[in-house]
Amino acid sequence: MRKILVIGIGAGNPEHMTVQAIKALNRADVLLIPTKGAEKAYLADVRREICDRFLENSSCRILDYAVPVRRADGTYEDGVHDWHRAIAGIYERTLLNELGENQTLGLLVWGDPMLYDSTLRIVEHVRTAGNVAFETEVIPGITSVQALCAGHGIALNRIGLPVEITTGRRLSEGWPESSRDALVMLDGVQAFRTVEDPEAEIWWGAYLGTPHEILLSGKLADIAETITETRAKAREAHGWIMDTYLIRRPAGEEEGA
Amino acid sequence: MRKILVIGIGAGNPEHMTVQAIKALNRADVLLIPTKGAEKAYLADVRREICDRFLENSSCRILDYAVPVRRADGTYEDGVHDWHRAIAGIYERTLLNELGENQTLGLLVWGDPMLYDSTLRIVEHVRTAGNVAFETEVIPGITSVQALCAGHGIALNRIGLPVEITTGRRLSEGWPESSRDALVMLDGVQAFRTVEDPEAEIWWGAYLGTPHEILLSGKLADIAETITETRAKAREAHGWIMDTYLIRRPAGEEEGA
Ligand SMILES: C[S@@+](CC[C@H](N)C(=O)[O-])C[C@H]1O[C@@H](n2cnc3c(N)ncnc32)[C@H](O)[C@@H]1O
Ligand SMILES: C[S@@+](CC[C@H](N)C(=O)[O-])C[C@H]1O[C@@H](n2cnc3c(N)ncnc32)[C@H](O)[C@@H]1O
Repeated sequence: MRKILVIGIGAGNPEHMTVQAIKALNRADVLLIPTKGAEKAYLADVRREICDRFLENSSCRILDYAVPVRRADGTYEDGVHDWHRAIAGIYERTLLNELGENQTLGLLVWGDPMLYDSTLRIVEHVRTAGNVAFETEVIPGITSVQALCAGHGIALNRIGLPVEITTGRRLSEGWPESSRDALVMLDGVQAFRTVEDPEAEIWWGAYLGTPHEILLSGKLADIAETITETRAKAREAHGWIMDTYLIRRPAGEEEGA
Repeated sequence: MRKILVIGIGAGNPEHMTVQAIKALNRADVLLIPTKGAEKAYLADVRREICDRFLENSSCRILDYAVPVRRADGTYEDGVHDWHRAIAGIYERTLLNELGENQTLGLLVWGDPMLYDSTLRIVEHVRTAGNVAFETEVIPGITSVQALCAGHGIALNRIGLPVEITTGRRLSEGWPESSRDALVMLDGVQAFRTVEDPEAEIWWGAYLGTPHEILLSGKLADIAETITETRAKAREAHGWIMDTYLIRRPAGEEEGA
């Protein structure tokens, strides 16, 4: 049977690669690497550096593909749906045309495939389409959440307390009800500016794990403006940005260990 | 200046070790390894296997220490507090008595130090005590959350939706208000049995990443009993258990990518 290996490669530092991921990389007969725009170009560079450093299987073929462009007409949901189908088509054709029976396709996923990433869903589209049989194996990778916490030397959660992982879009609609700690990803709107608690603290990071890493932390009210400006400048300088942050609001007594 | 390296070692599989963590391991002059009870004995074995496989710095000294026992009298909070101080004392004495100036102490933390782990807090106790100056550096590691999702081949979040990371104790007090997805750790009470939604699904895993890994998933109503029994049997057979799970309840439309 054919196999798809979905390999988490870490969130920016090639040394986030685990021993398990390096071994998986070397089990692949074909590696598919996406290319698209300024951000994706950087991501593709990290993937390529990972292959240069860790790939020792000289019979492995690296295939580039241009990521299909998301349609701007129609609803956002339809756009995403069509976009996923288009990528599913690329995976399917690669499985059918580039791999023999019992061969393995490797997909290198930014961070960990479990976290705000569509690869596993797209692979399921290929499976349900039913044109090619294959197994799937997932290899975890260091996420940007972990790179953020390590960079700041902080814990994600307070003792015994919950934390909500959420998106900028969600946070901009209101603070999560059941948690006083929120880890925010995919924030195109700087939703931290909508949090009005004067006691809130923020730990923010951009380009985590890369040589361009920026870390800022403090009382949200004091540094929201600095973050907004730093973010805008960095984004202009690099042509793209990826950032994430933890906001912590005072809570009652911490619990347990 | 002295340094403490807090190194995430992954959640059970020694091959969760990242290249960054392996390098960090080899930068340490002293490694402190805790030993305690059946569970901790297994954890200490994984740490030892990691040292055997990845430690090449022959001048590094590995020191064992017995983890202080938590006091059973007094409040739970006081017990934890005293326990943290006792471990802080061990770290401090190690820094002062076993390390020279400019030497490095490595602490190997299960999973990632950011997630429900007290090491970073204990290190802060040592810093505030002020008896020895040192820097801290944190190296992320694969968490049990990631091992769970990889084992089941699932994403933690649905498209654009939040997820709450919480404890068994919390879940037993009620479902998180703002999220339909909950990842539960530290569950000594099998809190999944308190979730009454007939549509809820669960992905459960124990001993993740180890040769004893157990994975179960399905409609919660159908398999809660199986999980409870499997858990009890495995716990008896091994003398300890570590398990974690994701519960997903039907939500409205998914959003975004
Ligand atoms: C589509 S999600 C993918 C997340 C990825 N799977 C992970 O495990 O981190 C992209 C979002 O992740 C965050 N992100 C990913 N890499 C990052 C980095 N190196 N620095 C800061 N944020 C990052 C940002 O919030 C970004 O909007
Ligand atoms: C004190 S917390 C430490 C978590 C750890 N820092 C991490 O990153 O996964 C211990 C809890 O983590 C979960 N856990 C840790 N390792 C696990 C494993 N190998 N399998 C299943 N659950 C695990 C269990 O919920 C356990 O109660």
